[in-house]
Amino acid sequence: MKVVVIHGPNLNLLGIREPHIYGNIKLDDIHRMLEENAKANHITLEFFQSNFEGEIIDKIQECLGTADGIIINPAAYAHTSIAIRDALAAVHLPTIEVHLSNIYAREEFRHKSLTAPVVTGVISGFGAGTYQLALLAMHQILAEIAHLKAQQGNKAQ
Amino acid sequence: MKVVVIHGPNLNLLGIREPHIYGNIKLDDIHRMLEENAKANHITLEFFQSNFEGEIIDKIQECLGTADGIIINPAAYAHTSIAIRDALAAVHLPTIEVHLSNIYAREEFRHKSLTAPVVTGVISGFGAGTYQLALLAMHQILAEIAHLKAQQGNKAQ
Amino acid sequence: MKVVVIHGPNLNLLGIREPHIYGNIKLDDIHRMLEENAKANHITLEFFQSNFEGEIIDKIQECLGTADGIIINPAAYAHTSIAIRDALAAVHLPTIEVHLSNIYAREEFRHKSLTAPVVTGVISGFGAGTYQLALLAMHQILAEIAHLKAQQGNKAQ
Amino acid sequence: MKVVVIHGPNLNLLGIREPHIYGNIKLDDIHRMLEENAKANHITLEFFQSNFEGEIIDKIQECLGTADGIIINPAAYAHTSIAIRDALAAVHLPTIEVHLSNIYAREEFRHKSLTAPVVTGVISGFGAGTYQLALLAMHQILAEIAHLKAQQGNKAQ
Amino acid sequence: MKVVVIHGPNLNLLGIREPHIYGNIKLDDIHRMLEENAKANHITLEFFQSNFEGEIIDKIQECLGTADGIIINPAAYAHTSIAIRDALAAVHLPTIEVHLSNIYAREEFRHKSLTAPVVTGVISGFGAGTYQLALLAMHQILAEIAHLKAQQGNKAQ
Amino acid sequence: MKVVVIHGPNLNLLGIREPHIYGNIKLDDIHRMLEENAKANHITLEFFQSNFEGEIIDKIQECLGTADGIIINPAAYAHTSIAIRDALAAVHLPTIEVHLSNIYAREEFRHKSLTAPVVTGVISGFGAGTYQLALLAMHQILAEIAHLKAQQGNKAQ
Amino acid sequence: MKVVVIHGPNLNLLGIREPHIYGNIKLDDIHRMLEENAKANHITLEFFQSNFEGEIIDKIQECLGTADGIIINPAAYAHTSIAIRDALAAVHLPTIEVHLSNIYAREEFRHKSLTAPVVTGVISGFGAGTYQLALLAMHQILAEIAHLKAQQGNKAQ
Amino acid sequence: MKVVVIHGPNLNLLGIREPHIYGNIKLDDIHRMLEENAKANHITLEFFQSNFEGEIIDKIQECLGTADGIIINPAAYAHTSIAIRDALAAVHLPTIEVHLSNIYAREEFRHKSLTAPVVTGVISGFGAGTYQLALLAMHQILAEIAHLKAQQGNKAQ
Amino acid sequence: MKVVVIHGPNLNLLGIREPHIYGNIKLDDIHRMLEENAKANHITLEFFQSNFEGEIIDKIQECLGTADGIIINPAAYAHTSIAIRDALAAVHLPTIEVHLSNIYAREEFRHKSLTAPVVTGVISGFGAGTYQLALLAMHQILAEIAHLKAQQGNKAQ
Amino acid sequence: MKVVVIHGPNLNLLGIREPHIYGNIKLDDIHRMLEENAKANHITLEFFQSNFEGEIIDKIQECLGTADGIIINPAAYAHTSIAIRDALAAVHLPTIEVHLSNIYAREEFRHKSLTAPVVTGVISGFGAGTYQLALLAMHQILAEIAHLKAQQGNKAQ
Amino acid sequence: MKVVVIHGPNLNLLGIREPHIYGNIKLDDIHRMLEENAKANHITLEFFQSNFEGEIIDKIQECLGTADGIIINPAAYAHTSIAIRDALAAVHLPTIEVHLSNIYAREEFRHKSLTAPVVTGVISGFGAGTYQLALLAMHQILAEIAHLKAQQGNKAQ
Amino acid sequence: MKVVVIHGPNLNLLGIREPHIYGNIKLDDIHRMLEENAKANHITLEFFQSNFEGEIIDKIQECLGTADGIIINPAAYAHTSIAIRDALAAVHLPTIEVHLSNIYAREEFRHKSLTAPVVTGVISGFGAGTYQLALLAMHQILAEIAHLKAQQGNKAQ
Repeated sequence: MKVVVIHGPNLNLLGIREPHIYGNIKLDDIHRMLEENAKANHITLEFFQSNFEGEIIDKIQECLGTADGIIINPAAYAHTSIAIRDALAAVHLPTIEVHLSNIYAREEFRHKSLTAPVVTGVISGFGAGTYQLALLAMHQILAEIAHLKAQQGNKAQ
Repeated sequence: MKVVVIHGPNLNLLGIREPHIYGNIKLDDIHRMLEENAKANHITLEFFQSNFEGEIIDKIQECLGTADGIIINPAAYAHTSIAIRDALAAVHLPTIEVHLSNIYAREEFRHKSLTAPVVTGVISGFGAGTYQLALLAMHQILAEIAHLKAQQGNKAQ
Repeated sequence: MKVVVIHGPNLNLLGIREPHIYGNIKLDDIHRMLEENAKANHITLEFFQSNFEGEIIDKIQECLGTADGIIINPAAYAHTSIAIRDALAAVHLPTIEVHLSNIYAREEFRHKSLTAPVVTGVISGFGAGTYQLALLAMHQILAEIAHLKAQQGNKAQ
Repeated sequence: MKVVVIHGPNLNLLGIREPHIYGNIKLDDIHRMLEENAKANHITLEFFQSNFEGEIIDKIQECLGTADGIIINPAAYAHTSIAIRDALAAVHLPTIEVHLSNIYAREEFRHKSLTAPVVTGVISGFGAGTYQLALLAMHQILAEIAHLKAQQGNKAQ
Repeated sequence: MKVVVIHGPNLNLLGIREPHIYGNIKLDDIHRMLEENAKANHITLEFFQSNFEGEIIDKIQECLGTADGIIINPAAYAHTSIAIRDALAAVHLPTIEVHLSNIYAREEFRHKSLTAPVVTGVISGFGAGTYQLALLAMHQILAEIAHLKAQQGNKAQ
Repeated sequence: MKVVVIHGPNLNLLGIREPHIYGNIKLDDIHRMLEENAKANHITLEFFQSNFEGEIIDKIQECLGTADGIIINPAAYAHTSIAIRDALAAVHLPTIEVHLSNIYAREEFRHKSLTAPVVTGVISGFGAGTYQLALLAMHQILAEIAHLKAQQGNKAQ
Repeated sequence: MKVVVIHGPNLNLLGIREPHIYGNIKLDDIHRMLEENAKANHITLEFFQSNFEGEIIDKIQECLGTADGIIINPAAYAHTSIAIRDALAAVHLPTIEVHLSNIYAREEFRHKSLTAPVVTGVISGFGAGTYQLALLAMHQILAEIAHLKAQQGNKAQ
Repeated sequence: MKVVVIHGPNLNLLGIREPHIYGNIKLDDIHRMLEENAKANHITLEFFQSNFEGEIIDKIQECLGTADGIIINPAAYAHTSIAIRDALAAVHLPTIEVHLSNIYAREEFRHKSLTAPVVTGVISGFGAGTYQLALLAMHQILAEIAHLKAQQGNKAQ
Repeated sequence: MKVVVIHGPNLNLLGIREPHIYGNIKLDDIHRMLEENAKANHITLEFFQSNFEGEIIDKIQECLGTADGIIINPAAYAHTSIAIRDALAAVHLPTIEVHLSNIYAREEFRHKSLTAPVVTGVISGFGAGTYQLALLAMHQILAEIAHLKAQQGNKAQ
Repeated sequence: MKVVVIHGPNLNLLGIREPHIYGNIKLDDIHRMLEENAKANHITLEFFQSNFEGEIIDKIQECLGTADGIIINPAAYAHTSIAIRDALAAVHLPTIEVHLSNIYAREEFRHKSLTAPVVTGVISGFGAGTYQLALLAMHQILAEIAHLKAQQGNKAQ
Repeated sequence: MKVVVIHGPNLNLLGIREPHIYGNIKLDDIHRMLEENAKANHITLEFFQSNFEGEIIDKIQECLGTADGIIINPAAYAHTSIAIRDALAAVHLPTIEVHLSNIYAREEFRHKSLTAPVVTGVISGFGAGTYQLALLAMHQILAEIAHLKAQQGNKAQ
Repeated sequence: MKVVVIHGPNLNLLGIREPHIYGNIKLDDIHRMLEENAKANHITLEFFQSNFEGEIIDKIQECLGTADGIIINPAAYAHTSIAIRDALAAVHLPTIEVHLSNIYAREEFRHKSLTAPVVTGVISGFGAGTYQLALLAMHQILAEIAHLKAQQGNKAQ
């Protein structure tokens, strides 16, 4: 089982940028924590960060046939990118959208997510823990899908 | 550690009502699953469901001084109740808002939550699993608070 | 055949409150007229009035499996209650929304009904007669359903 | 007593056009059913259908002094014609607006009726039965008016 | 010099319809008054009333090359007809829009005129006198145009 | 003379909840202060607090024929409840709406009150003093009404 | 009979300012033309121009009891001044609002007039001629009022 | 194969009206060009122009069972006519909406087409060539449909 | 203690202007009543009325260092003047906004006050009594401030 | 003659992504079809696809002086990219915007194109055929331009 | 060369009013700094401050023929005064709008400037330095104009 | 002291693209002028232009710890990029936003800048001179910061 974790623009500054909103943890710290959790659940993780809308779309498309699920923090692009939304809808994999801060407690223009309507679920506001919750949720979704497929396999016999 | 789980209007119909949106699991099934998870983490749970805005406000107020955190699925009241928002803001406990379905993939009027701006975080779209993720998140938040208090206690000495 | 007639907030004041808008007939008078019409059509009626959104939701849910149709005058809650809408959508019975006055000839905020999109039909503006028209319409709908079921029963044989 | 029944644009296609929304009954079938009901109540009916906003206005104006009431299904013109609204307001007869489908359960732009604020009442969502309910309602309104006039006549003596 | 006076929908009811808004004068009375004023100024008048948007467009187009100016009371079509606006813009004659009542003192939806941006000027609120003011204004505009043409003719010599 | 003082949702938390907005005074303190002022003016006070929209409506209706005036702090329901507005309009007593904080200096959604258009006057922003000002204002209104009635009584003789 | 002609801000620049919109005629030229027309109709004119909202309000108030009608070109203040609207509503004299250019053919923010709903009528788009039409209209309105008063005087005898 | 080409209001003025927007070609010229193209593709064309919304609806309805496709330039009615939209949806034939000018480069109110959501495709901005492109597109659509039908016929055998 | 009472545009017409909205009391009467109340509380009053936005700003600025509080009825300027709002925010004195009528029961554009967010409190709807309530409220606010200063003075010793 | 065909984000997934909306044809198939048509008309084609807004802008700029026309399917960027709009406006070549699906029949946010106002024309809804129609239209536009230039060349001689 | 520097309402309080937003520098300090810069560039400055919209309009008009450029800080009037906008458009001199604070970082209603669309350029957010930058910019603009005029003078010879 | 000058999309076309809006000066010319000014003030400049949102974000992030200030012309991205806004807020350096043309005098969608609320100041409308003014402003800001730091250093001693 492989899950791709995509971080949107400015998340490479995590731990440096505005710690009163985003906390002190760096992206690498999050990756380490996720790796530990993933290993226990036999999930392979790939990490990707980009400030380019186009690179994020490329990466999402690359998941077609190579990954089982996507965890994406679109950051600012959640509010402006129909192209990323279209990419997510096109690859049609189990997808979880995450936000470190509670976006509903911030500026009005961050309340609306263009990508949220095409993902499986949204988790927002738990800092670095948000990613861990997303990984857990992804694990359950993938387990359920595997279970359903196994059942169908049995039936087909 | 005590956490109160509050279910808003029509959630007593869970498992009966519109299964294509909300799934087949009943509220009692969710409670059983949560109890198991909670026990392992030394968390006591109290469950409460009401179709009355007023009863939900009463219950939230009751948490003042008696509970350590709130997990709330305000259901329809998320979109219409400023009074529940005010109650949550007043008791000012760690609070997680949950929605079974991905509210951003449904009718326009369900995209806006009046309560979300005053809670710690929001989880939406993972069916019954949403509550489990919320309990896990709550556990981490409470652990972190306990840790901070312990540190402050040590310093004060 | 059983039909539940639900009256929303302030309708208990009917005949007392603002007669230039709602007329002089009392709720009991309406009940008596409806009982007469219902008896002739072998319909049992249950009447219910409440100023509580929660009680109206409880009553709607109670109809699940015990009633064949609902006639509801949500009054002010038509314009503010997504929770009642969700309850009506959940029980999924033939439902008719009624308004004594022509709501389109009144204040702007009364033109939009949150409940109307989930009911079978809407009748508005005929005073106490509105309820009688609704009962007649309900009778026809129930007759048609009975007819369809009978046909299916015959085919199944 | 004479009542004019006016059908707006595309209603001549009834029974042919989009049966999943409007059902299979033809306009002539509706007319036959209405005629039966009307005869019993000593009401004369005149039927009129047009796809022309102007012809509908002409017909409404023609009712001045020649008819006692109007049943109108303005169809699409309900949402766009201030001119028909002005005509209805000008002749100032008892008028009932009908819609075959529940317009509140359809596209956003069909939720607002420009004509509804100037009619006596609105009935929407009961298919062909909508017209029958309207005829019944009209019969009651005309009876009440006749009754009031008779009272005034007695007093004047 | 020829001026066409076009009256929009329901203006044939003038003097009959809602006299508290529009007064008691009939369309024929207005025509007589205008004829007198016109004769004195050597202006030929043609009168036209229709409830049909299409007929009004036809009449406006007919003015191309046959009339020197248009006085139009588009009535309700002022607020809904882009087609009449396009016709007026196409024939590009001196045009005056008139309204009997002060449309800014009435319902919100009558405050906006789709035709006003393509006419020479607008006069609103003087009852039957509105037409007389419009005729006077038209006379001045036509005189000015004639004067300018004469000047150009002289220069060209 | 009897005046009913109605407190809306979460006002039972006064003095506990968000003191930086609402101050430290408790509801009971306010009641004591009001009782003193009332006694001097021969006004009997009844106090009522509820978090239930329905209970507030019931209490307002109860005032019909039993009270001479209403002082109401609808709190959050001021911004969401058309049903309370309808109840106030129905009983049609002298009514004063109060808000402890200056609602115009807070979130946008608190600027609009659905109940304000049907009350006599609004006082907002003077903390506990707001209620005292309202009682004073109510005293003057009731005195003026009594004065007018006395005058009419004299004339009638 | 006395009529006060009030010109709003920047109209003192007429003939200098943006001639492609407002023409070459100066305010004094307009005054001369109006004086001639007024004399023939036994109307006394007073002219007033100010760039101050406050001075315009003072002048309107001054008309109370000293003038029989007001012709006002509020210019930019038509779109921003509720205070001038209130002054016009307070003195409650026959009032005609004029605009030199067709305001509906200009920027969106000039389409809405705050003062128009409280005046008798509006004339817009005929350049300097607009004032002449307004004076003529005012003459007719005043004549009609005088006529009605004379009739009432006769009846009273 | 028969295709009906419908031209909306004011298109009879083509070549005369505002040539800087619509060019110099007349409607007849367009018809001649289309006839040539159609003949080569064994398509019969019928042309129809009207300034009447009602006549356009009649013509669209007439296509039911007599035509294989519709090319329509609704002109101004694209922006105001729900009735034409309903007619197009009702006959449910392959339909192409055309506009001579690029409507997105013109006034805001021309950017929205009420008819576009129910047609197959839209072509806008190529002057007279727009119709030729539409005929070509229609030819391809009809060919594809014929091809599919032939396939199904073969399978059915 | 000195309090400046500022009356906005058209309030000099009080008692003359629209008595059905504002009552019969004149501004001088209000001043007399206020003087009496003020004397008893050792408050000096200064009265000021202007129709000029600029004069009101000058007067507010003049209060800097010379007055202890402001009672202001901005009238129409409440809805349009950011400049008066800025002046009030700049002098930063205890300020009470008053309105004679209940502005929430009037036209939509009077519901929003630009000045209200920067004042201490708002009182609206009690006619001339509104000023008296404001004076009382101001007295309490100034007393509280004096009390706090005295306490701080004691502490400082 | 050289025409550059630019495909926006996610169009590289054509034939794979959501075939119920976009059909089964791949981008290469479209290129092959276009090449055939182009060769016959002596047009050289260059194809370009990118998921990067920046690369699309670079490519558009590159057309300056090297290409004679642009066919662009901006996909999601049509709805969000002012930068691409600016690039198209800057190079100012004959440009045709295409969309495979009828964007007016999809989500509300796809109805508005930021790029459409600066292109020559728009074609939408004909699947792969959309590109062929665009190439044909481009051929006609380029032929017309060549023709005009030739004429001007002749005249200049 | 003469430049008039106009300061809008409340700027006379600069250095006193809300120093956390506007800093401690007084208007006179700014004038001194500007005078120094101006002298070096052979520019004569005139300073003007008013809280009156009308006085600002008068001053702007006075610049016609007497000044070469305007530097204006309209303060609050930037957001409410169409009359000042009209005055600036009328005199049509090189004009620079300045704001001490970054108005885009403040309340929503300060983001829109009615005057900005008719000025040459806008500078906002540099405190007292804003005026210095404006003077520098004005110097460059005037130099460029002088240069162009000199060139034209040479050509004319 | 180092300042990075960032040019957004299409600015590489400066001097080529739409000279009636942006003038004839090329980006290199601007760089040369800026270099001269910078050298005199001991400021080192780095220039960067990109059509890629992502590259601009990368460059802004790169300024963290390597530059003392940013001058940015976000061009079209000012109106659409929350990601660039977030980057600017994250690096939190003195930043000046510039626009060559007066964006308030152009299309509505260019009036709103998403980046402006997080920068120090905005300069718009002075063509190439805009950059020079920005450099001057930056010089003053940096000098002031250096001055403050020196003062703090002295105090710390």
